[in-house]
This record gives sequence, structure tokens and C-alpha cells, in this order.
Amino acid sequence: MSSKSNFMSDNVSGACPEVMDALIQANEDNSPSYGDDPWTKELTVRLQEIFETPVTVFPLTTGTAANALALSTLTPVFGKIYCHELAHINTDECGAPEMFTGGAKIVDIPGENGRISAESLERTIYGAGNVHHAQPATVSITQACESGTVYSLDEIRSITSVAHAHSLHMHMDGARFANAIATLGVTPAQMTWQAGIDVLSFGGTKNGCLAAEAVVFFKPELVGDFPFLQKRAGQLVSKSRFISSQFTGYLSNDVWLRNARQANAMAQRLSKGMARLPGLELAYPTESNEVFVKIPMDLIERLWAQHLSINDEELDGKAVRFVTAWNTTESQVDDLLQLIATQCEPS
Amino acid sequence: MSSKSNFMSDNVSGACPEVMDALIQANEDNSPSYGDDPWTKELTVRLQEIFETPVTVFPLTTGTAANALALSTLTPVFGKIYCHELAHINTDECGAPEMFTGGAKIVDIPGENGRISAESLERTIYGAGNVHHAQPATVSITQACESGTVYSLDEIRSITSVAHAHSLHMHMDGARFANAIATLGVTPAQMTWQAGIDVLSFGGTKNGCLAAEAVVFFKPELVGDFPFLQKRAGQLVSKSRFISSQFTGYLSNDVWLRNARQANAMAQRLSKGMARLPGLELAYPTESNEVFVKIPMDLIERLWAQHLSINDEELDGKAVRFVTAWNTTESQVDDLLQLIATQCEPS
Amino acid sequence: MSSKSNFMSDNVSGACPEVMDALIQANEDNSPSYGDDPWTKELTVRLQEIFETPVTVFPLTTGTAANALALSTLTPVFGKIYCHELAHINTDECGAPEMFTGGAKIVDIPGENGRISAESLERTIYGAGNVHHAQPATVSITQACESGTVYSLDEIRSITSVAHAHSLHMHMDGARFANAIATLGVTPAQMTWQAGIDVLSFGGTKNGCLAAEAVVFFKPELVGDFPFLQKRAGQLVSKSRFISSQFTGYLSNDVWLRNARQANAMAQRLSKGMARLPGLELAYPTESNEVFVKIPMDLIERLWAQHLSINDEELDGKAVRFVTAWNTTESQVDDLLQLIATQCEPS
Amino acid sequence: MSSKSNFMSDNVSGACPEVMDALIQANEDNSPSYGDDPWTKELTVRLQEIFETPVTVFPLTTGTAANALALSTLTPVFGKIYCHELAHINTDECGAPEMFTGGAKIVDIPGENGRISAESLERTIYGAGNVHHAQPATVSITQACESGTVYSLDEIRSITSVAHAHSLHMHMDGARFANAIATLGVTPAQMTWQAGIDVLSFGGTKNGCLAAEAVVFFKPELVGDFPFLQKRAGQLVSKSRFISSQFTGYLSNDVWLRNARQANAMAQRLSKGMARLPGLELAYPTESNEVFVKIPMDLIERLWAQHLSINDEELDGKAVRFVTAWNTTESQVDDLLQLIATQCEPS
Repeated sequence: MSSKSNFMSDNVSGACPEVMDALIQANEDNSPSYGDDPWTKELTVRLQEIFETPVTVFPLTTGTAANALALSTLTPVFGKIYCHELAHINTDECGAPEMFTGGAKIVDIPGENGRISAESLERTIYGAGNVHHAQPATVSITQACESGTVYSLDEIRSITSVAHAHSLHMHMDGARFANAIATLGVTPAQMTWQAGIDVLSFGGTKNGCLAAEAVVFFKPELVGDFPFLQKRAGQLVSKSRFISSQFTGYLSNDVWLRNARQANAMAQRLSKGMARLPGLELAYPTESNEVFVKIPMDLIERLWAQHLSINDEELDGKAVRFVTAWNTTESQVDDLLQLIATQCEPS
Repeated sequence: MSSKSNFMSDNVSGACPEVMDALIQANEDNSPSYGDDPWTKELTVRLQEIFETPVTVFPLTTGTAANALALSTLTPVFGKIYCHELAHINTDECGAPEMFTGGAKIVDIPGENGRISAESLERTIYGAGNVHHAQPATVSITQACESGTVYSLDEIRSITSVAHAHSLHMHMDGARFANAIATLGVTPAQMTWQAGIDVLSFGGTKNGCLAAEAVVFFKPELVGDFPFLQKRAGQLVSKSRFISSQFTGYLSNDVWLRNARQANAMAQRLSKGMARLPGLELAYPTESNEVFVKIPMDLIERLWAQHLSINDEELDGKAVRFVTAWNTTESQVDDLLQLIATQCEPS
Repeated sequence: MSSKSNFMSDNVSGACPEVMDALIQANEDNSPSYGDDPWTKELTVRLQEIFETPVTVFPLTTGTAANALALSTLTPVFGKIYCHELAHINTDECGAPEMFTGGAKIVDIPGENGRISAESLERTIYGAGNVHHAQPATVSITQACESGTVYSLDEIRSITSVAHAHSLHMHMDGARFANAIATLGVTPAQMTWQAGIDVLSFGGTKNGCLAAEAVVFFKPELVGDFPFLQKRAGQLVSKSRFISSQFTGYLSNDVWLRNARQANAMAQRLSKGMARLPGLELAYPTESNEVFVKIPMDLIERLWAQHLSINDEELDGKAVRFVTAWNTTESQVDDLLQLIATQCEPS
Repeated sequence: MSSKSNFMSDNVSGACPEVMDALIQANEDNSPSYGDDPWTKELTVRLQEIFETPVTVFPLTTGTAANALALSTLTPVFGKIYCHELAHINTDECGAPEMFTGGAKIVDIPGENGRISAESLERTIYGAGNVHHAQPATVSITQACESGTVYSLDEIRSITSVAHAHSLHMHMDGARFANAIATLGVTPAQMTWQAGIDVLSFGGTKNGCLAAEAVVFFKPELVGDFPFLQKRAGQLVSKSRFISSQFTGYLSNDVWLRNARQANAMAQRLSKGMARLPGLELAYPTESNEVFVKIPMDLIERLWAQHLSINDEELDGKAVRFVTAWNTTESQVDDLLQLIATQCEPS
């Protein structure tokens, strides 16, 4: 791929060596299918260590499926799911949550820097018990969120308190979970169940796997019919070891945190460099591996002329998104900054 | 895995070397996501060569999703899908076709050796245009079928003629497509669009891939909204090259046919060996890589005591299924036959 | 309507006087909506008397909606519903059960005279707990059934015993409930909850109402989210009194039984008359208000020439269906018999 | 019903005499079912006169079903439906549009006085053709709207222009269609297809029918599979004449307009009376048959003590809604005003 496309998304990166090694090793012999393989069993054990609590885990292949299946166990067909208006489930899943839940209604809430507040959530919930209204059921927050910022533990706790006070379930979309952990410097337990999260979409793909996501339940009573729903959704991979073994590599020796720290560090380097360039302005604080920059349209056009990949339909239609990954290097960041710098002041 | 579980299914086998090599190579650099990678583009080219006609191709991760998505483009929410009563879509997908189509109705048809006939299909179709009845929409046949037998080209042509005479679409579940091609010795074109098949689920997983399936459209006008339906179903893998590159290896140098021929040959060896054992009887002719054997219950129990894996809930509740794969060896087959032989005549 | 169309269906008849009178009376003043009206409240009381047990009742407008909503409270999205192959839910609701349940699978069972047997049901149930299979959930029987015959109490008890032994719920489609009660001469309690029925679609429309059906729950724990599901299905009529007041008239002074007895008596008269005609043969015993007669095709054509309405797409493609209603008279029956008799022996 | 509940909703009113008379007359004889009756056929003819253009008409029983079915023919499963945030389809149908469309996404738009503007609609539409986003499909406006105000013809034309420029379909929820016609003094043609409306939910229930709604298509190419979708939704009433004949009375001799004019006039009288009372303030202009008044909480409590029915969960949580109907009288309005006046100044 052209070096000028490296910052398009974290999903342009491949798998890190440890993940590939684990996958290759898992292929050495025959193995039981449909989750009866050793790697899938090990995954649960490993995540219980990481989260310091019993969990029920379902590995699968895409973040959209992870979110939609998680939500479908938490939300009745006539239920409402509350989330930020920029949430992936609201804007980037082409109706998957609606499909998997059988027609639940996503209620989107505005909020600064891509995050909802407990107060705005509280104001938005209404209609419980009234047969005319879709029923409040679930709250979903994204950590790190779509704007690249991160909820503090206090913010999470406030939101989950509101949710639970209304008997709603709490889902966390953790497509960039590792990046948030790396930013906050807290434990996975602190950022999830100890803060009131009931179910987590735990992402691996964006941070060094090929295609590996997991739905993690912290409350066994919420698992419900997940195995049937997963199979019915075409998300039960027959040779399941090839998903689970990716996690074996990913979760060994803090590889997942190492990857996230590298991505975050490169985002910081990029963010600081951008902020120094004339005419550029950060749209959001850079708190994970995404940098959002307001760039004047004429500069964007000069960058396009230099074949820099800039998506013209960005998250909010105003800021350009640059994403770093586990394999982003300092020189890649510096090259990008250099390219933009040269175009800032055309001769 | 214990050697005594090797025949449980073809999905206990891993990926063949060429598939792994292609995957590893695809991981060497960054690459565009969501199907814009070179491997996905190459896949279409390669399948057009193999099928000798323009095709539209969508790679994804499970056979259940491939079938359900294909059916959802062919069948309205109030439609009927006709298939054999043992079809995977009817018995082994936990309602995925119903979910993806939004409630279509599967009408199952009995038939010898796991195959429907044109005559029984014709007799079953009724109600078109009558608002009280779910509407005839789609016919799905499995090649090779769930009983391990294979439709002849004539049988396929007769069935597709009936379907098209009623303006129904023709789907082929090709989870074991390569095995059927190897058995019939015909071209992929002959067994599909030239025989009246409109859409194919082209399987790679069972025959040497990790997780690679593709929906192949032979008629562009049937593709419809597939891209949106695929995304909405959580089946659009972001790092798409990791699915498509499997096919790169799989479809190179006739690897896919070599794999299928080996599996079929081992099934023949096993089938012939079984037929010679006292008290055993083949339930169906062995025409692909599955062998169905009627085994007396007391013998099954002795084999369980020897730790041979025999699923007690088999396809039809009566015959035991043994499945060979691309990596099944003669000595594995002979060991299995030897084990059973020793238990046939207990001291 | 032409007198020669009177036997097309029981839904060509209008409402009986008592139903119209109650409706007119319910219109005299303003009244609360959405079920808070006195007629809806009275309906529950009245049905509790009739069924001699506490019940939860939801009035609505069509039998298809009653069945589909009832099934949707009993059946998960990945569930199986067992019924006779001729059941209305299987053949005449254009996929409504699939829509309302979100994709459940109807498994149809053959059976003599339109009825399933406990034995065939037992043989058909499999796969509970296995994630690959849609899950056994619900059994639905129709009383009186689509062939015009009636389950005996013993037959019902045997079927519900099988269902409950497998932890399945029992639904009865009672579109012609009154006719079956009139035939068996048993109490509504005996034919439903005392025989193991959990939920009943209680029909009024075919037997003297305009459009009045009710879902009747005998087990409060099965009601679940019915009120929300009903509203979401567009089946919560705002001026609810206009449905409920029909039942006020219908259930007063045994009007519903009087109507059914008249329809049944006329069916007996018709059936006996048919049996005496040369070349005609009853397809099923006449046990409610439907008469199925095998009529030679040339006679059918002569009857068409006489403008007798005979649907050419009958229940089973072979027998002609004649249906009597609460307002069918002896002279109408005799006229029909006379017409056919004259055509039996053309000059 | 207590006279103090008369203003709770227009659905507390019964049917007007002409509607009841037509219904009674339709019951006099047997009649074909499922829409083959004379009243249903006449309905199309009558609506074609009223709308001065060919239309395709489907009568049914609830406004929720009319809206949801109409939307389901216009919107793919992955589609977006744009409407005002207070629209009935967004807030008061418990997810029916989501159910009937199979998971489409309602995008709600704020707007003054309960109406969206062409500008805000234009700003909200995005993502067409991008597989990650639910796809723009349909716009729905309510006329008269949920706040009791009415779109001008110019406003409608501006909105439909934006919609059609984006290839979106235009739906009008006309639960109070007659009231809007009465207010604007325009023709039904001018307010619908001549202004760019494609499909109309034409309401009768709130304005003098028992339960009678109709979906009216102005473009035959949009009808699609409506008959099958209607049957599948349990919305095809078997004795169809009992819905259609209500329209016979309703649409004869301008009964529908007379009813609406009376309701509107009483709303004007009430609105003006309210505006004169100390401490009360109109929340929206009164332009149809709904009056929204901001009432101090202590006054509300005194009115509750007088047994006046005031719903504590009103449309927007702030204003109290009073609704007039075809049978509201001047003395009822004056009694209500008198009651409130006496409580405004407690001794």
C-alpha cells in the first residue's frame, strides 16, 4: 500500500508477529471445531485473569457483529438503545443493531468530544412502562470513543449509575479498548465491571489481529441465548481456533497493551506536530490513536494532489481523521507532518 | 487432537500450506480495507477464469452467512425457499436464513439420498399470486449434498428448469463444491450457470482454508443490495485481505481440486473398507468426502469405549457420519478401519 | 351477494343482531381508549366465567394477528413451531408467524383428517440444546381444524403431554373454537387449560362478529411483553370498545354457542345430502361447519357454468370446501344440494 | 365517560351517525371477503374523486399499521426514515416502523412547532451509497402535525423537493388529514400529490369512524408488494366491508370535512378561551383540533383534584394537551374553560 495511505484507518495495518505466530501454531494439527478447541477454552481463562472476575466470552470476526449481538441479548425488539450520536452503532453499521435486535430503536444523544454525559442521558430516558413508546433498555458507550477521546472512570461510573437506576443494561463498545486502557493507565476491571459495565465488545482487529473480536459478559444472567443468536447470525466460525488463537498471541506478554501504547504514542506525536502547523486546528483532544484536525479546504486539495489519502466523508464532515496503529513508526509520522508542512506554505 | 476424532468433520482439519502461505504473504505490508485490497480484487478475476463468465463475488467468513445472505437477496420477506429436508439451511443454521431474509419460510422436500427431484419440486410449488400464501421465490440445492451424494448435471438442469419455469431463483450451497466437481469431473461452469444456477455459496473452509467462503452471483441483476446487506449482517470483514488471500492460495495451481480429490479418495477407501466389515451397511452411496454407515448400537458402544468420536446425533439419527478432508491420509483411514474391525468381533 | 356464493367461507356472513346491537350501544357516548373502556374490562370478566379460571385477554382484529402475536410470546427468534401441515399458520398467513416471531421456523407435520397425533409430534421433536438447530419451542393445534374435524379431549391431552414433556408451549388456534365446543359438548375449560392448552386464539369473526378476535392466556407467566408486542404490531385499536363490545353481544346469552350450533347443524345437513349424491365423496368427516367433498372435475365445471362459487385452489387441491355460518338456513342448504343434484345427472 | 375526560384525545369520541348507518347497512346481507366487497371497491372510486387522480387504496384498522406498512414499502431494511422528533412514528408506535420495515432506522429532526423544515432535512441527509451507513430512503411528515400545527403548501413543496432531489420517497401521516384540509382550505390533491407526496396514511378513526384508516398510493410503481405485506402483518381484515363501509359514510356528503371543521372550530374556541386565562400560555399556535397549553403545576394539581383528566406524560413533558373531536360541543368547551377559570383563582 502507498505510504500515503497509512493513516486512513487502523484497519489498514496487518497482524502483529505474535498474533501470526499463534495462528500458525494453531494450524499445526487437527482440532475440534465450534469452540471446543483449546485456544477458545484458553481465551476464557486468559480474559478472566485480565478482568479479574469470571466472564463468559464469545469470539467472533467483526466489531459490528460483536456490538449487534451484544445489544441483541440486552434489548427487546421494542427496546431503545441510547448512545452518542457519533457512535459506531449509530452511524457505521448500516443498521446491524436494528437487524440483530429485530427492530430496536437507537436513540442518539449529542455530547462534547464524542462522549455522552450522565446528565444528558438522564434527560433523554422516558416512557418506561407506557405501551405507546419503545422501551428504554440499553446504554452503549464507546471507549475509546469515535472522536478519539476517552471516558474517565468517573464519567463511566456516572453514566452506568443513571443506566442502572433506570434498570437499563450497560454495553461498552471496546473496538479500541486497549487504546483507552493505555491512555487511562487503569486496569481492565476498573474500566469495565467495577465501573458498572455489563457487557463489553472487546476488539482485537484494529490493534494487531487479523479479525478477532470477543463479546465479554460480566454478568452470567445476561448471557441469555447468545450461543443460539451467534449461530443464527452466521457468526459461529467452524474452525474457531483461528479466531481464538489470534487472541492467544494478542493477550500474551502484554502484546495488546504494547501495541496500543505504540499507536497512542504515535498519535500524540502526530497531534503535537499538527498543532504546530499554521492553519491547522485539532478538532478534539487526542487521547487515543485517532487525531482529528480541521484543515482548510484548499490545503486538503493540495494534499490530495500529493496523493495523500484523505477521506472526504469524515466522521463529522469537518475534521480530517488520521489514525495510527500498532505498527506506525516515528518516521511515518514525521513524513506525514513534513508533507503537510510543505503544502501549508506553497511557493 | 486425538487421532480418533479426525473423522468427526472436515472442519477439524486446518488450513493447507498454500493457504497459510498466501495469508502470511498478505500480512507483509499495510493494505486498504473493506475489499479495496489487491487480494479481493484478484479473487473476482480468478473466479471469472474458473467459472468462464463474469461473476460478482463477496467473500465472507462462514457458510451459514454465505447461504443466508445469498438467500436474502433472492427471497422477499414473505417468500418461500424450497430445499431438501436435510439441507444445511433447513437443519443446521439455527434459523439464519429466516433471520437474514426477514422471515422467509423454508419449505423442505423429502428425497432419496439427500437430493430433491424436479418432480417433487414441481409438486410442492403452489400459491403464487395468492395473498394468503407465502410466495414461491427460491430453490436451494446442496452440491455435494448433506448425505454425501452428488447431483448429476441432468438432475441440476431438471431442477433449475422447474424453478425458472415458475420464476424462482436457483441457489446452490457449495460448502463442498470442490468435492462435487472432483466427483463429477465437470467444469465449474457446467455445474453452475450453464446448468441454471443463479447464485452460488462457494465454500473454502471445509477444504483447506481457515475461514473463507464466497457468494458468487452469475447474474448481475440479482446482486441487488448485497453490499449493504453484508455490512448490516456484520459480515464485512475490515481487514478483508485476510479472507481473500486465503482464496489466493486455495485457487492457485488447482490446490482446491487437489484437496478435494484427496478427501474424496480417502472417503472412497473408507467407504469400501466399511462395506467389507460384517454388520455394517452404507446408508448412502459415497460420492464425495462423507461416508454414512449404519452401525449396530452395541458396536457403537464398543467404539465409544475405545474413545472413537461418534456423534450420537447424526444427520438422520440412524447412520454414523465419517468425514474425510484434504489432509486425511491412507494410514488414518486404515487405522480407523482396523479399529472398527477389531471391535466387530469382540473376543 | 349472489346466493350461489354463500358457502364460500364463513367470513362472507355478517354480524349477528346481538353483536350489532352491542356495537351500536357502545357508540352512544364517549369512552376511554386503548382498552380502558368498560367493554374491554367486562370481556376479561366474561371470559373468566366462561373458562372458569383467571385469564389474561387481549382483543384484536384478525385471526392472523392473534395467532402470530400469541406465537411471538411463546417462541424465541430461533425457535421452532410445530403444527399440522394444513394449519392456517403454515399455509394461510403469508408468513405472519415468521414476521411476528422475528424468524421462527414452522415445522409442519402430516396427519390424518387435518390433525397431528401425539406420536408424530414426538417423532418430529429433536435438537434441543444443540446450537446448530432451531430450537423446539411451541406446538400449535387448530380446533376445529382446517379440515373441519375436531380433536377429541383425549387427543388434545396426549399432544399437550408430549409438548410439555419437552418443555414446549401449547397454543390453540380457535378461529372456529365455538364450533368445536358445540361438536364435542364439553366446556371451554375442558377443551383448553384443563387439557393442557397454554394460550388460545379465541375467534369471533367467523361466527357472528364483524372483526373480533382475542388472545387468551391461561398462564400469567406466559403473557410476557404482549402489550408492547401488540402495540408494535399495529394491533392496539385506539377505540378499543368497538372490538370488545362485539364480544359483549357475542358472549351474552350463549349467542356464540347458538351461532355455532346452527352452523354445525347446517354443515351436517349439507354433508349428509352430499353423501347421498352419486359420484360425490366426503374427503373428511364433517365435524364442525366445513364440508369437504371430492367432486369430479366435469361436475365442477358444470357447476361453474351454473355460477356456483367453487374456489379452484382449495385446501388440499382435491376436495371442494363448503362452509356454513351462523346465518346459513335450511333452505340455502337444500337449494345448494338441489343445484348439485340437477347437475349430477345432466340430460 | 365522565365529561371531564372528553378532551383527553379525539379517540375518546365514537363514530358519527353517517358512519354507523353505513356500517349497519353493510351488514344486511352476505358479502365477499378480503376486499372483494362493493364497499372496498367503491372506496377506491370515491378517493379517486376526492384526490382527482388515480390512486391505489388499502383499508386497514389502525394508524400505526397504516404508517408502518406504508413505510415498509418505501424503505429497505437498511434504510433511513427522516421525520420530526415528535412524529408519531418516532415516539408513539412502540417500534412498529422498525418491525414492519425489518429494521429501518428512524432519524429524528428537531423543528419549531412540531414541523421539520426543508433546510434541516437537507442538512440531515448524508451517506448515500456508502456501505457503512444506513441509507437515506424516506421522509415522513405529519399533517396536521403532533403539535397541532399545519404545514403550509409551500412548506410541503420545499420538503418534498429536497426529498426527491435525494431520490427519497415522501410519506404523509394523515391521521388528522381532514383537520389540516379544513384549516388550509385547499383541496386534498393540492395538499398531497400535487405538492409531492407519494404515499398517504389517510385517517378516519380520529374524525368520526370506529376504526378505519387507509394507505393511499399516488404512484402505482410504489405499491410494490403491499398486498402481501398487509396480509403478512395481520392487517387484511376478512370481513373487509366493515372497514370500507365506514369510509362510505365518512366520505359521503362531506361528512369528513364537516366533522373536521367542527373539531377545529371547537379547538379555536378553546384556544382563545385558554389564552385569556391568567397564568396560562399556549405552547403552539392552534391550527387544527389540538390545543397545547402551558399550565403551572399547582393549577394542574387543583384541576386533578376536580377530577379533570390531564395526562401527566404529555407530548413534550411541558404543555397540557386538549383535543377536540367531531362531536365536541360549545357547551363542553365552555364548561372546561369555566372549570379551569374557577381554579385559576382559588379562594
